[in-house]
Amino acid sequence: MIDLRSDTVTKPSEAMREAAASAEVGDDVYGEDPTVNELEARTAEILDKEAALYVPSGTMGNQIAVRAHTERGQEVLLETECHTYKWELGGIAQHSGVQARTIDGGPRGVVDPEQVHAGHVEADGHRAGTGLLVLENTHNARGGTAIAPEQIDAAAEAAHDSDVPVHLDGARLFNAATALDVPASRIAREVDSVMCCLSKGLGAPVGSMLAGSTEFVERARRVRKLMGGGMRQAGIVAAPGLLALDNRERLHEDHRRARELAAGIDDIDGFGAREPETNIVLVETDEPAATVLDALEEQGVAGVAFGEKTIRFCTHWDVDDAAIETAIERVSRV
Amino acid sequence: MIDLRSDTVTKPSEAMREAAASAEVGDDVYGEDPTVNELEARTAEILDKEAALYVPSGTMGNQIAVRAHTERGQEVLLETECHTYKWELGGIAQHSGVQARTIDGGPRGVVDPEQVHAGHVEADGHRAGTGLLVLENTHNARGGTAIAPEQIDAAAEAAHDSDVPVHLDGARLFNAATALDVPASRIAREVDSVMCCLSKGLGAPVGSMLAGSTEFVERARRVRKLMGGGMRQAGIVAAPGLLALDNRERLHEDHRRARELAAGIDDIDGFGAREPETNIVLVETDEPAATVLDALEEQGVAGVAFGEKTIRFCTHWDVDDAAIETAIERVSRV
Amino acid sequence: MIDLRSDTVTKPSEAMREAAASAEVGDDVYGEDPTVNELEARTAEILDKEAALYVPSGTMGNQIAVRAHTERGQEVLLETECHTYKWELGGIAQHSGVQARTIDGGPRGVVDPEQVHAGHVEADGHRAGTGLLVLENTHNARGGTAIAPEQIDAAAEAAHDSDVPVHLDGARLFNAATALDVPASRIAREVDSVMCCLSKGLGAPVGSMLAGSTEFVERARRVRKLMGGGMRQAGIVAAPGLLALDNRERLHEDHRRARELAAGIDDIDGFGAREPETNIVLVETDEPAATVLDALEEQGVAGVAFGEKTIRFCTHWDVDDAAIETAIERVSRV
Amino acid sequence: MIDLRSDTVTKPSEAMREAAASAEVGDDVYGEDPTVNELEARTAEILDKEAALYVPSGTMGNQIAVRAHTERGQEVLLETECHTYKWELGGIAQHSGVQARTIDGGPRGVVDPEQVHAGHVEADGHRAGTGLLVLENTHNARGGTAIAPEQIDAAAEAAHDSDVPVHLDGARLFNAATALDVPASRIAREVDSVMCCLSKGLGAPVGSMLAGSTEFVERARRVRKLMGGGMRQAGIVAAPGLLALDNRERLHEDHRRARELAAGIDDIDGFGAREPETNIVLVETDEPAATVLDALEEQGVAGVAFGEKTIRFCTHWDVDDAAIETAIERVSRV
Repeated sequence: MIDLRSDTVTKPSEAMREAAASAEVGDDVYGEDPTVNELEARTAEILDKEAALYVPSGTMGNQIAVRAHTERGQEVLLETECHTYKWELGGIAQHSGVQARTIDGGPRGVVDPEQVHAGHVEADGHRAGTGLLVLENTHNARGGTAIAPEQIDAAAEAAHDSDVPVHLDGARLFNAATALDVPASRIAREVDSVMCCLSKGLGAPVGSMLAGSTEFVERARRVRKLMGGGMRQAGIVAAPGLLALDNRERLHEDHRRARELAAGIDDIDGFGAREPETNIVLVETDEPAATVLDALEEQGVAGVAFGEKTIRFCTHWDVDDAAIETAIERVSRV
Repeated sequence: MIDLRSDTVTKPSEAMREAAASAEVGDDVYGEDPTVNELEARTAEILDKEAALYVPSGTMGNQIAVRAHTERGQEVLLETECHTYKWELGGIAQHSGVQARTIDGGPRGVVDPEQVHAGHVEADGHRAGTGLLVLENTHNARGGTAIAPEQIDAAAEAAHDSDVPVHLDGARLFNAATALDVPASRIAREVDSVMCCLSKGLGAPVGSMLAGSTEFVERARRVRKLMGGGMRQAGIVAAPGLLALDNRERLHEDHRRARELAAGIDDIDGFGAREPETNIVLVETDEPAATVLDALEEQGVAGVAFGEKTIRFCTHWDVDDAAIETAIERVSRV
Repeated sequence: MIDLRSDTVTKPSEAMREAAASAEVGDDVYGEDPTVNELEARTAEILDKEAALYVPSGTMGNQIAVRAHTERGQEVLLETECHTYKWELGGIAQHSGVQARTIDGGPRGVVDPEQVHAGHVEADGHRAGTGLLVLENTHNARGGTAIAPEQIDAAAEAAHDSDVPVHLDGARLFNAATALDVPASRIAREVDSVMCCLSKGLGAPVGSMLAGSTEFVERARRVRKLMGGGMRQAGIVAAPGLLALDNRERLHEDHRRARELAAGIDDIDGFGAREPETNIVLVETDEPAATVLDALEEQGVAGVAFGEKTIRFCTHWDVDDAAIETAIERVSRV
Repeated sequence: MIDLRSDTVTKPSEAMREAAASAEVGDDVYGEDPTVNELEARTAEILDKEAALYVPSGTMGNQIAVRAHTERGQEVLLETECHTYKWELGGIAQHSGVQARTIDGGPRGVVDPEQVHAGHVEADGHRAGTGLLVLENTHNARGGTAIAPEQIDAAAEAAHDSDVPVHLDGARLFNAATALDVPASRIAREVDSVMCCLSKGLGAPVGSMLAGSTEFVERARRVRKLMGGGMRQAGIVAAPGLLALDNRERLHEDHRRARELAAGIDDIDGFGAREPETNIVLVETDEPAATVLDALEEQGVAGVAFGEKTIRFCTHWDVDDAAIETAIERVSRV
């Protein structure tokens, strides 16, 4: 089975496993795990933020950010198709009591500064006001689009014009940085907090990072405790996470393979695929996605439904050139 | 001062005051206030629902409905400009922990069945699913538009296709019924719950009604207690409410006056007003709304800002033909 | 039927009905109802607080206070049997996300300063800290006990020692003041907010007052909107509320009658009643309360169960001396 | 430094590290991590429950249980000093909107069936009713007391009498089982869900288990997603967790050492220690705990304050016989 469902399925490398085995650890709830501390410091450095926090999942990272930035009842501006809004069980309402106001970012999921201004709400007797803008880059549901730093800046500045903080869901931030050939810190420059996952294209087994100001991360640490995200000798999983950070260098291969996969599939009758910007390939199908996925599974290729007639394939480091070739061939048989 | 800010400013009639003075009362928390019971029964009859509940405000009626219909984390479909979403302090997230998904109903705020289908979300591991559709009629922020029963039916049926219940915010339901020349019950026929205000064009001093199935109203009664909406000898205000129900007959006058006001203002340089459907007149101004409102106040006319260059005027039973004429003249002086 | 279930069943007097009929009103959501404004000002004066807010019920008053004083996750200290904890549907957890920490105030429900100190929790990584102390006077479930101002002061000061604010549920505050022969303001002197009901012994049909600092009442007003407690021409019910304030003078009669009732019942075999402090009579029964209440109802006396073998009777202005005598006689027949 | 602050500070063994390095993994969010699946199956078997769920922390396990068992507004019965109530940031109010009702379990933290009956509340118009009983064994804050299965049974049966489910916080369940010489499953026999930690005395680096019926665990899995507790190749930490389960056999050594430590300290002037039941030693000090802890730290012994004049020491597998002897000697120098 060539598993193209998600880059979350990547298995840790031998080096990561060895790092786990030999990690120096301590009790992170007491702040005493040196490997976690190193991972947090190194992430903060890479993202050019004051501090960072290790969390068990990207969902927890996003939910902590929303809670740490907002007051109950406030509105949160989010792109209509973003993960925080769409795939986190309505967490922003449940954990933070805030109301979503969505912005349609079009086919690439780009939020314009005008849209931020238009969506902004001043607090008054009937409205609690806008409390946060959430951006996402790369934008998963929009096909892994890599949004330019200037576009992130512009949206963030529009929010800051009204003193609204900005959180960036960078679950695949390093894919964006790779595609745009800029440091990840450049993309996150104007946002107040940023979450990035170690467990997707970077290949770590567990964990995501939430970065921002020292004061923000302090508040976030408290919310993490509330969520039950405090782990003990977390160095065991933080150590592979440190190696994962080095994997940023190899994401361009996933992107190249995604382009090859898309091109190959687009040539097949009954399938259409636009050129991917990163490691996510959205494929339009003539038949219902569920039917096609069943047929593909029989052939030994796995993807996920992303719409009634849309399938998502994701390249990652467990899929090499040969696998891509085979995958295309198998799709053509369907 | 000719007060056109809202139909909520209407003062109770002499008959209403006498009704308050002579109301038979009891402790409504024990269900023993005969006047409240009569008001609830009569409202249920008018709206052709099994039962109804008296609540202190329209906001409470809407918030109770959302809470009584949904589970935490579910999504609620609402028109982008509807009151429940826009002007209730993010209550649906705060009280019910549900997430808003908005539908753009265009200039008249009409939700199409296709939009309901498109906005519907099935529950799965990442999504809590759609739990409620909220409609509004007349649609306040869209200019008091009176949406045809068939359009309400169609949206409601689209929700019911997926077993999603429907709540109708009918704060000005009787204005819609009047404009469309149908019974209010016809408009609410396909919805599972409906809220209507006694304190707007109907002129009651206090209160709104929430109607639905017996089982729904039982749940709603419990949520009302949680919200602190249980009142004691509420018959004192329910009695004027009963008379208010009879005022449905006179709403057509407010509508006629609104049309005259709109026509008169539209003729004035620097102002534009489309023909109103009910008692709400939206006026586009060349100058900023705040500036215009200040100038109007000096002349003795009051309205409210509804946008940067939009003013809302509302006709109601404390504004007669002469007042409309005078108002137009005063606007022309600005 | 002699209705001794609660003083909430009192029906408004003729004077109150006339006041309702002739009340000067306006839209209180705009702050323009002169009668409401007068009621709020007069209450603030009587309670010697900077400001007051009219709310539809005592439950809403208490819940608004908890929300306006606390942060999510904080602990609230309450007497084990107090109304806010026991009979408000877990509202403090639902509306405010705060955790109850109860103090056993013994047979009279008096919270000692040592108990406040002992119950106080400092915020740290595992605890959100104490955010509020709630007191109740008279204490309903403890049998309408009138707690001395010095005892309220002492508990409040213990809370203030740790910068914890104090809310007083004074649903029957004026009963306490009457029994203790002090102004109500004296009892509320050291607390940060106080709620008192107009609709119990004072006889108003609807409403309670929440008083405190100007800044607190401003926050409370916003929470009232969130709860749906904003009413329109509320003067209709505020006017009887103003008269209700004058009824403070006659509460001593309810107390005398309660003592007579208790004495009369205590003489009857199978019943025991300690001397009441205010207008609430707790009666211990040999048979189960439910059985006794059924038998009493047949005889034409109504009370409520307050425990397996405890019944509560409440005197109020709809129960005169003759009714008390008859009630005793009817009880003796059971 | 001899670190006796908590058994959470234990570092994973070489065998655990090797297990981490060689773990077979998959994406647990898809349910495809064979090591996690094995850990869940094996835990369910050990605890004799239908199913189990791997979670990042004991706090998350408890909070998920409360949420999965209750409805908003319900009351949860908990021992006054239990972890879920005391040290989880008021999570039960924040995550679940439920109200705590505490039971004083006395010096050993044992909840009697009579107390459960007395604390039980039926749902009615003013009360949401009791929704859950939470027990804890061993009871941390009560000094690691090991509560007999018959006592757990009795409390659980009392709850079940009223159809109230029971959750057991067994963060140190295996310590209780060891001390009482019964299988852990015997202790958990009558409870509906049970949480046990792999990361305390058992020495795993990360994680806790939540077990119960298949249907309960399904709901819990969904709440885990909401909390952000879903991890990817969690097998890396689940593998040491599997070995940790075998460490149940060695907990009796921690208990013996705790007894030795207590006896040694109790002989020292200015210190008092009752005989510990498991691995937790509570020491009463003549001087303030903070002062004593500072002095101890200088000598090279670490504990935590558990009260103004109470210190907790915890034995665990990183503390051998020699360390205990040294610790006693160092305490004697203070």
